[in-house]
Amino acid sequence: MAKDLEVQEGRAARDYQDPPPAPLFDMEELGKWSLYRATDASAGGADCGGVGILGIAWAFGGMIFVLVYCTAGISGGHINPAVTFGLFLARKVSFVRTVLYIVAQCLGAICGCGLVKAFQSSYYNRYGGGANQLAEGYNKGTGLGAEIIGTFVLVYTVFSATDPKRSARDSHIPVLAPLPIGFAVFMVHLATIPITGTGINPARSFGAAVIYNQEKAWDDQQWIFWVGPMIGAAAAALYHQFVLRAAGIKSLGSFRSSA
Amino acid sequence: MAKDLEVQEGRAARDYQDPPPAPLFDMEELGKWSLYRATDASAGGADCGGVGILGIAWAFGGMIFVLVYCTAGISGGHINPAVTFGLFLARKVSFVRTVLYIVAQCLGAICGCGLVKAFQSSYYNRYGGGANQLAEGYNKGTGLGAEIIGTFVLVYTVFSATDPKRSARDSHIPVLAPLPIGFAVFMVHLATIPITGTGINPARSFGAAVIYNQEKAWDDQQWIFWVGPMIGAAAAALYHQFVLRAAGIKSLGSFRSSA
Amino acid sequence: MAKDLEVQEGRAARDYQDPPPAPLFDMEELGKWSLYRATDASAGGADCGGVGILGIAWAFGGMIFVLVYCTAGISGGHINPAVTFGLFLARKVSFVRTVLYIVAQCLGAICGCGLVKAFQSSYYNRYGGGANQLAEGYNKGTGLGAEIIGTFVLVYTVFSATDPKRSARDSHIPVLAPLPIGFAVFMVHLATIPITGTGINPARSFGAAVIYNQEKAWDDQQWIFWVGPMIGAAAAALYHQFVLRAAGIKSLGSFRSSA
Amino acid sequence: MAKDLEVQEGRAARDYQDPPPAPLFDMEELGKWSLYRATDASAGGADCGGVGILGIAWAFGGMIFVLVYCTAGISGGHINPAVTFGLFLARKVSFVRTVLYIVAQCLGAICGCGLVKAFQSSYYNRYGGGANQLAEGYNKGTGLGAEIIGTFVLVYTVFSATDPKRSARDSHIPVLAPLPIGFAVFMVHLATIPITGTGINPARSFGAAVIYNQEKAWDDQQWIFWVGPMIGAAAAALYHQFVLRAAGIKSLGSFRSSA
Repeated sequence: MAKDLEVQEGRAARDYQDPPPAPLFDMEELGKWSLYRATDASAGGADCGGVGILGIAWAFGGMIFVLVYCTAGISGGHINPAVTFGLFLARKVSFVRTVLYIVAQCLGAICGCGLVKAFQSSYYNRYGGGANQLAEGYNKGTGLGAEIIGTFVLVYTVFSATDPKRSARDSHIPVLAPLPIGFAVFMVHLATIPITGTGINPARSFGAAVIYNQEKAWDDQQWIFWVGPMIGAAAAALYHQFVLRAAGIKSLGSFRSSA
Repeated sequence: MAKDLEVQEGRAARDYQDPPPAPLFDMEELGKWSLYRATDASAGGADCGGVGILGIAWAFGGMIFVLVYCTAGISGGHINPAVTFGLFLARKVSFVRTVLYIVAQCLGAICGCGLVKAFQSSYYNRYGGGANQLAEGYNKGTGLGAEIIGTFVLVYTVFSATDPKRSARDSHIPVLAPLPIGFAVFMVHLATIPITGTGINPARSFGAAVIYNQEKAWDDQQWIFWVGPMIGAAAAALYHQFVLRAAGIKSLGSFRSSA
Repeated sequence: MAKDLEVQEGRAARDYQDPPPAPLFDMEELGKWSLYRATDASAGGADCGGVGILGIAWAFGGMIFVLVYCTAGISGGHINPAVTFGLFLARKVSFVRTVLYIVAQCLGAICGCGLVKAFQSSYYNRYGGGANQLAEGYNKGTGLGAEIIGTFVLVYTVFSATDPKRSARDSHIPVLAPLPIGFAVFMVHLATIPITGTGINPARSFGAAVIYNQEKAWDDQQWIFWVGPMIGAAAAALYHQFVLRAAGIKSLGSFRSSA
Repeated sequence: MAKDLEVQEGRAARDYQDPPPAPLFDMEELGKWSLYRATDASAGGADCGGVGILGIAWAFGGMIFVLVYCTAGISGGHINPAVTFGLFLARKVSFVRTVLYIVAQCLGAICGCGLVKAFQSSYYNRYGGGANQLAEGYNKGTGLGAEIIGTFVLVYTVFSATDPKRSARDSHIPVLAPLPIGFAVFMVHLATIPITGTGINPARSFGAAVIYNQEKAWDDQQWIFWVGPMIGAAAAALYHQFVLRAAGIKSLGSFRSSA
């Protein structure tokens, strides 16, 4: 019986026998690209010609949907160091793989930002290289909190969507995992673009900072976009594993004894 | 045979053997957050820099989609007192559980609004704390009617999406329940934001009023956002149970006798 | 074998043993409501405070998605006389049922428009009662053509989404029928709102004209919103039944003979 | 065992026993139509009355979703010469069929554009016939690169969504193929509308150029919208077949030997 459960959870294990996700680079580059186009309204303010905050949120949410959909079969959809870290804490990815993934993610983000700089230099300069920065009037504590909560929501949704017990307990709800994950990213952007420009993905913040390479994006604030997401991801992972799953295992236990 | 039916409907029963939905708090907080960000256009008018009514509607609809998707396996997606009340009337939740759920929902909403006030004080004050209020030019009867109809649509969609007979009768249409529920919330917001700011969730209205704590939000109008949704939910529940299901049971009966 | 096929197509037959769709009224009312709110930009022009053409298109597409999703199990999602007429031509609905459905749809639309007039009188008058009218600069031929093509797309999508052979031939593509139907409505609105305000549903045009009751909406143009959709629906039905299905039956035949 | 695999991949083979996709014409026409309406903001700039870049992106993404959904069962959803070319390189379509499909696609696009010119002549002239052109400030290299990357993303998503091994390896993720394909088109439009107006479909660019028939759309730039998409599609096809599938076959091999 314990074996059966392991087989059911075997998806995660099988996914991680693939090589590190070098294949993701090209796709991620486009993510960065639409990123720069989209950060228009957040940086420049209220011009109707741009896509606005709603458009930025759609750009990120839609791109994450497509990326996770396309890469779920290759690397398990790992395109965010915070998500990978959360899955590592839940023992779904090995330590070595986690490190390799995060390195690959950061390299991909750097390539993507470089591509944007080369292709779209006027937009690139106009919107500060798409680098995440605290907006005026927000202190670092608020920005850190926004990143923590935003990443918590994202990683919590990832855990909900990929929970192997989900199919066992709620087989009446088909699991189309990438769609709610994309919508969660959409929502978090709507909420936090005006505070930090929305990081919730350290690789995205890191790549933009590397290519933009200005002091403010680096010395002062880069840590927010690593510490915040990692705390949020850890909170979501621990919460899901210890609070929700504990209850789940209990109820499964009682189910078994009655069987 | 009656037993078989009960097993088929056993999902609802199983869901409600879990502990009260304390886990939902953190997620709901974010819901409140994007709420305040979003109520920009409805309160302030026509500035293109905000997300506008369309953006508000997407924020609420998308967030409900993600929340229901994530919590469906824990508490059955109970994040709205009116929905819980409707399911109680349809005998899907016990009385004790209904009361506990509604208390938890209100506490979650209060925490969420407090968090927004702490993080986003400038937006918070600018948009009146996100509290639901009748817009100028609408009397209380119109507001109450808007809340009744809006909640009717939401709860009717919830019943349609979770109807255990749905799979039996229409197995050709996969039931991805949270998506239509989120879209229903989206639609209702498009229709009623200009009237009441769209309540259709007493906890959302209550939490905003508690934290904002101004006379108008409390003494005068709070009842609208409890009475309206409860009437709408009751109407949807009775309609679904007595009109639609009655027909369904009859046709099932004739099916059985021919078998 | 012929029997098997009939069983597979039995879904349609079973759906139509239900009583006429009186239950749909309340839902359809809301559709009308968001309709009036939404036709802001198309009538009034370029004010950013409204939801714009994009918002109108989302309002209609999303509402149709929710309505079809909710009513698919009751009346087969019949909320549009043109769609019902198309399904009648394809012999999926009986003549009596078709007439009853269309009467019920028109009554529902009238009730909905009356409700909007009562609740939202200022919006109602401002946007001409949501009545479909040719925009300035378009003649009746263009309007009729727009209605024909728009309804063709809608009814063609309905046939594609509910084709019983779909599951047999493309079981790799899960059929979540209401979603593409809603998206088709969304697209058609994007394309034809500036021409006719988008009818493609005679009941919607009829109800608005009855309640608005102005000469232009009635004497001169109402026929466009009946003749256009009916031609479009007939074209889609004939095309689907005679061109596409004929090919399908042939290939099925060759499949059978080889078996 | 090898036979089993072939049966699994048999879907593609079976689809292509149908006649050339003449049936697609009518639908594609509408795609062109909303196209012209939508290219408002990209050509004219920042007027709030139009649907803006976000609306254009939704128009294209949504239309592709509906078109692919409707035609997947007839011609396999072939409405783009670049996608057809990519699938030809991956040996999913025969050479003759590829040529016939591309001819049909171009004819459909020409008909569609002609229809728009006839129905919407004022919009048509105002927005330059919807012809793809490099925006001011971008050179041909940038435009070519944008088309290559954009088409790569689209075709890569098509391969991911229709990969027969997907169901074998990731049966926990239901494959609703047209939805991510539509979202990929949406994303690519958000990113590249300001550069080239977004081609990524040579038939769309060709049809618009034929009907618009101005020197700039023809002599100087048309090649970009053929060469770019074809390179992008070829890259995606080769990448998917040789890099991703190679790894997949290997892991499948190890799975077999252990079985």
